[in-house]
Amino acid sequence: MGKGGGEYLMSTSDQQLGSVGIVEPKSVTLAHPPDPLRLVCGRTLGPITVAYETYGTLTPEKDNAIFILHALSGNAHVAGKYANEDRNIGWWDSMVGPGKAFDTDKYFMICANVIGSCSGTTGPSSINPETGRPYALSFPMITIEDMVQVHKRLMDHLGIERLLSVAGGSMGGMQALQFAVSYPDLVESAIPIATTARHSAQNIAFNEVGRQAIMADPNWRDGNYYDLEPPNRGLAIARMIGHITYLSDESMHQKFGRRLQERLQKGFKFDIDFQVESYLQYKGARFTERFDANSYLYISKALDYFDLTEGVSSLAERFRDLKARFLVISFSSDWLYPTYQAKEIVKALKANGLHVVFCEINSAYGHDAFLLETEQESRLIRDFLAHTYTAVRNRRMT
Amino acid sequence: MGKGGGEYLMSTSDQQLGSVGIVEPKSVTLAHPPDPLRLVCGRTLGPITVAYETYGTLTPEKDNAIFILHALSGNAHVAGKYANEDRNIGWWDSMVGPGKAFDTDKYFMICANVIGSCSGTTGPSSINPETGRPYALSFPMITIEDMVQVHKRLMDHLGIERLLSVAGGSMGGMQALQFAVSYPDLVESAIPIATTARHSAQNIAFNEVGRQAIMADPNWRDGNYYDLEPPNRGLAIARMIGHITYLSDESMHQKFGRRLQERLQKGFKFDIDFQVESYLQYKGARFTERFDANSYLYISKALDYFDLTEGVSSLAERFRDLKARFLVISFSSDWLYPTYQAKEIVKALKANGLHVVFCEINSAYGHDAFLLETEQESRLIRDFLAHTYTAVRNRRMT
Repeated sequence: MGKGGGEYLMSTSDQQLGSVGIVEPKSVTLAHPPDPLRLVCGRTLGPITVAYETYGTLTPEKDNAIFILHALSGNAHVAGKYANEDRNIGWWDSMVGPGKAFDTDKYFMICANVIGSCSGTTGPSSINPETGRPYALSFPMITIEDMVQVHKRLMDHLGIERLLSVAGGSMGGMQALQFAVSYPDLVESAIPIATTARHSAQNIAFNEVGRQAIMADPNWRDGNYYDLEPPNRGLAIARMIGHITYLSDESMHQKFGRRLQERLQKGFKFDIDFQVESYLQYKGARFTERFDANSYLYISKALDYFDLTEGVSSLAERFRDLKARFLVISFSSDWLYPTYQAKEIVKALKANGLHVVFCEINSAYGHDAFLLETEQESRLIRDFLAHTYTAVRNRRMT
Repeated sequence: MGKGGGEYLMSTSDQQLGSVGIVEPKSVTLAHPPDPLRLVCGRTLGPITVAYETYGTLTPEKDNAIFILHALSGNAHVAGKYANEDRNIGWWDSMVGPGKAFDTDKYFMICANVIGSCSGTTGPSSINPETGRPYALSFPMITIEDMVQVHKRLMDHLGIERLLSVAGGSMGGMQALQFAVSYPDLVESAIPIATTARHSAQNIAFNEVGRQAIMADPNWRDGNYYDLEPPNRGLAIARMIGHITYLSDESMHQKFGRRLQERLQKGFKFDIDFQVESYLQYKGARFTERFDANSYLYISKALDYFDLTEGVSSLAERFRDLKARFLVISFSSDWLYPTYQAKEIVKALKANGLHVVFCEINSAYGHDAFLLETEQESRLIRDFLAHTYTAVRNRRMT
């Protein structure tokens, strides 16, 4: 590489710029009896172990904490890596770090694996202390509201009384909305991204087919497979269905078109012919290495149960006691949670006179855009957080 | 019911108005060796039994024959019923009959079950005469082009040399396009509805997940299940996925919303909660009563293989030798074969100076609209056929 080439190259240290670097997975066990979690379904659960990570430094005023909320298959590992050689970089690393949208030089970031999941937080694959065996389907049904309840317990544990923001995409956005609804006095702002205030019939339909695929797998055995071969074929099919809904017609066309896999001609067999088939099968199979089929059932059901209009006459009524500022983001090609659903949220917030910034980002990436269109998201989020933080500090000074 | 009420009621005979009445399923065996069908995959197949129906009367000039082409799960039974008490009315009865869009007082209608299917035409569930056992996966891979080849053999058998029109929705529309391409001199007009000139990556993806669901069912047994329990759970899941793509977000919202099934409260179990879940499971289960899982594999693959641009530089080049007049219809909420795909067809036809009428019908019904929006479809088709027939007769007289 000759002279001057350096300006087009990044040194190793430059590449690290903006990374939170090596992070530490943390864990705490909460909700010990006699103070278990009271779930929406009517049952109680406890103790509950919560896997979480934090980045950045909490100010002495404890006014810079932001809770990041993850999607269906996510976990607490938002940014950085666990070791120098680790290739498992956090799922929103492009958004969280020094100088990034969620600037760890300014803010204290928290993310926790949701209840019902399988990445360290108590879920159906966890050992039930009363039986010494995995909960499996004896695990109680959980809701988005329950996930947020557990997050609140973690806040208590961390000694954090208020959040500068709650932010997340997809199911993370639902949790952000639910956070603002459940704890209106604890949340300065919320950033729901690529999300909805209630699962639509089409959303429910896709999830139900995924659940049917899992439960049709003979290895599922009514959920009792933990010491046996797991229902990986069913789970892979559920994930394949999910993946189609995360992409868009346009992004699939751009990414795969009708390109054939490996050979130049159609196989005229039921093997893989097209690259899109190969991609989906790969994604489905990889997913089974890191996700529990029962967790998929529980969390997809929590999504389907999510409806902020339940028990009230309108979404605006549900938002009546809210105080938070909002940044609502949708993506033009997201057909899982289309822009009209984001607009319903915006309209109901505005009906309550709340401060709302709304942006539909033009993107071909479909629902996955919330993980990919980080440049435009960053600009919006950086400004929104800065204004919110200024407002919070000004309020305290006056 | 008082006087005058009669004007709002239809008598039994009125209800029969426009019905072709009792129809007869027909069958013929063609392509006997040494003249078997030469398939696109390179293999030969014969003899081939073809189930078909005809309605109306062929003119002495044999100039009024219209071939109706069915969709993935369709059959030859387009209109009427087999007996007075029969509740199994043809799948496009609202469109085919005396005075209807496809007016059996004027036209001679033909419809044949496609090769590879399971409603009377030779497919994987048929007995292979060489082995005395069902073909199962030894059945050769078929394509839309092969389906049309068989239709041509049936035309020869019926002594019909030219078709006034070829018409169909979804896969039927693909066959209509393929008919015009394969036999440009035999087709006066074509009516492709809610269809595409090539399956998109998203189309392939949905079909592949359906196939995976079938092949993951342990009852599938590599296709050898004909004297055993069939893979109905897998087939039902494939059909459920299909159904979601046939509806639209809007039509599912209107039809089901988030309405709960039977009870007023969520079950907090993995049973059916929502009406949309119940509907899909019902549709999936019913489908297994009338459809063969291997046929689903073969026909869905034929759909995925469909690409009229294969081997040519553009769709316009593929249409270069065409002579037919075209009526192309799409539906605004059809996201399986969206309007932009119909416009690609229209553009390529017009590039060849062909006579094309195009209409996007405004509908919330999604892809299923081609079966439901019969009033608007009827108006378009009736006029188009009348003009085409006049042109054909005028041409003969000059």
